[in-house]
Amino acid sequence: MTPGGAGVAQRHDQPTGGPAGLIGSGYEPGGAPGARAAVVDGPHDGPYDGPYDGPYDGPGAAPAHAPPHGLHAAHPALAARTAEAVLADYLHRQSSDFLRSLRLHRESGSDAEGAGEAARQLRRAARRISATLHTFRPLTEETWADQLLAELGWLSGTLAREQTCAARRERLMAALTRLTGRGDRPDRPERGARDARPTRPAPDPADRGSTATAAGDPDADAALAAGAARAGALLDRQLTLARTRAHSAALQALGSSRFHAVADSVAVLASEAPLAHSASELPAADALIPLADQAHRRLAEAVAALPLARAGHPYNAEALAVDHRQDAPWHQVRFLVRLARYAQEVIAPESADLRLADAARALDSHRAAAEAAAAAAAAARTPRIAPATAYALGVLHADQRHQVEAARFAFGRVWLSRSPERPARGDT
Amino acid sequence: MTPGGAGVAQRHDQPTGGPAGLIGSGYEPGGAPGARAAVVDGPHDGPYDGPYDGPYDGPGAAPAHAPPHGLHAAHPALAARTAEAVLADYLHRQSSDFLRSLRLHRESGSDAEGAGEAARQLRRAARRISATLHTFRPLTEETWADQLLAELGWLSGTLAREQTCAARRERLMAALTRLTGRGDRPDRPERGARDARPTRPAPDPADRGSTATAAGDPDADAALAAGAARAGALLDRQLTLARTRAHSAALQALGSSRFHAVADSVAVLASEAPLAHSASELPAADALIPLADQAHRRLAEAVAALPLARAGHPYNAEALAVDHRQDAPWHQVRFLVRLARYAQEVIAPESADLRLADAARALDSHRAAAEAAAAAAAAARTPRIAPATAYALGVLHADQRHQVEAARFAFGRVWLSRSPERPARGDT
Repeated sequence: MTPGGAGVAQRHDQPTGGPAGLIGSGYEPGGAPGARAAVVDGPHDGPYDGPYDGPYDGPGAAPAHAPPHGLHAAHPALAARTAEAVLADYLHRQSSDFLRSLRLHRESGSDAEGAGEAARQLRRAARRISATLHTFRPLTEETWADQLLAELGWLSGTLAREQTCAARRERLMAALTRLTGRGDRPDRPERGARDARPTRPAPDPADRGSTATAAGDPDADAALAAGAARAGALLDRQLTLARTRAHSAALQALGSSRFHAVADSVAVLASEAPLAHSASELPAADALIPLADQAHRRLAEAVAALPLARAGHPYNAEALAVDHRQDAPWHQVRFLVRLARYAQEVIAPESADLRLADAARALDSHRAAAEAAAAAAAAARTPRIAPATAYALGVLHADQRHQVEAARFAFGRVWLSRSPERPARGDT
Repeated sequence: MTPGGAGVAQRHDQPTGGPAGLIGSGYEPGGAPGARAAVVDGPHDGPYDGPYDGPYDGPGAAPAHAPPHGLHAAHPALAARTAEAVLADYLHRQSSDFLRSLRLHRESGSDAEGAGEAARQLRRAARRISATLHTFRPLTEETWADQLLAELGWLSGTLAREQTCAARRERLMAALTRLTGRGDRPDRPERGARDARPTRPAPDPADRGSTATAAGDPDADAALAAGAARAGALLDRQLTLARTRAHSAALQALGSSRFHAVADSVAVLASEAPLAHSASELPAADALIPLADQAHRRLAEAVAALPLARAGHPYNAEALAVDHRQDAPWHQVRFLVRLARYAQEVIAPESADLRLADAARALDSHRAAAEAAAAAAAAARTPRIAPATAYALGVLHADQRHQVEAARFAFGRVWLSRSPERPARGDT
């Protein structure tokens, strides 16, 4: 078994046009328009609005992209088990985690840190439950699953907001500190290695032509520092207020009858997951692998549509220009990466795909930077702020969009770099 | 002869610690503190304040870093000629160019484009004369050379300013257009290759948590566009005014008696270059190569002190942070690249070093971006501007500092990328 990449059908019958030959050929978008549901972790994910039901004709039907022989042997976790057993087992574990973190959250009382950690764990479990219901929907009682998906989306979203506000505030404060140079200097080992510092050129007395020397112009630095201090105070106020509101909303949600209904539904998953009748009859490998495969293929297609070649050229300045930003396709890929990761957890829990984890990290930071940039821009539209404050917010906004670009670059490296080394991995 | 790299002594006796083994070992900074002069192209270059006279003991003395045997054969332009013949020949050509462009400038009258081109040609020749007098100073009448160096620096600086203002204005206007998306979209061939555009995800109705979606938030875009328009108008006014002033100053300079004295000095170079007596007695290879070699070594040392490893990691966000900007060492390297390039033109005119030309381009753009960023920051300190204007100037400033970082990255690629392919090149 290839380490870290065995969770998915290996397909040698496909063209290798996309990155690492990841594009499925037997997949046609726009199949049956099944019920769609809001999915996982509200503010972080759009509902999946792409085509869901491809040529896969339901469990048991021969999938259009038949895995080669010998494949089932590659999934020890699936061997000799029914689809129902595997799915129910996974959902059981996640819902137990969900209920345990819920209990922890209740018990944390005034312990803000404990409550935060419990909420994180709760969302973690909710993400996995949602993704599983989404990817393996044809094997579930679909109406029930769609309903739970929507409610988990609401709950995760509500719980996420407080943490998101806190993280955004921290990110922007750190950026301001870095920009104005009040932070610690990072180590530069490449300098230390060469002890003999050369004589620095003296300031140029003939430098009458330039408006100002960019290197340490004290006026410019002082103006930025003053503006940055006020911009920091402004962002602090705005994001702290948003966080407080999010906190109240989360507390209110956790006390609501809507929430208790969600918790009851998750408790059902822990005892007997409402799966389709077919799931109990089909071997796990036959029923689960094609669906997981589909999740990976959908991801590969979405990635293929990203301007990865451009993002691979550092400093393309694409993410800053207003009409080239195009964050949405990247956010969508982030969501698809999550589905693919968790589908793999279900069918091959023993082999985590490090590439998907790295990709998820890059896209998480993409999203965080994009939202921080938007928060800086929004703060700059506050009425009656000083020009110096607005200037610092402009610098901050551009800095964060720069981070967006950097995250795209990082994602491209993750996605493209490993493929040549693992040519046999097929669809992952 | 290695194409493009034969102009310099090949040294196999050196450690290869720096990039491509470029660090000379026989060179000690801080030798005789010879006369120093302001050099070439005023606002673009600081005077070279590093140690000039190393262990090189004057023409004729055995240099500390003796080139290996067979070296002279590698320089056909120097074969069987004296140092005086080679230097006088080069200076003659450059001063003829200088005088011709001066005539063109006078004749251009109201033809602004012709005058601009003539001024560019004049500065081009002045740069080469200055660099030659600087690098091969021990072979010249030094007092005379230092005097001419200072005057050429004044002249070039005065003439450069108008063009610099125009280029800066153009650069900033183009950046504003790009940032607000009013420009043309660049082609994206990587998209065209894959025709099937995937379904874009619909806007996320559950996205209640984020301040604003960065992708095309109409409010943010409109605010930036309005601010950018005003910022553009402000920069346009400021830089056009600066350009007009520079134009008057250049006209005044060209009519001054100080200018006529410079032109007379350059005319002397065209007929009989004031070289040291020793230059007429020494073979060109013996006298010129060690000095050119020294110019290359000094460059290599300055480059070795740059944080190239850090600049090689794209998106390090170093150039934007106030106390990490450190533009001066990069500007100094730009100046040393120029000296090395023109020294090579003197001793090996037939083999231009493409790497140095690429490096010069990267550092020119480094400097242009740094000065444009400073101009944006200076404009933001204009009293009574609107916050939206200041915000756009902040974005613009950060964008240009981003270009500074990109230029450093590009320079690093140029400098480091080719070395493994040309291991035999030694000092350049």
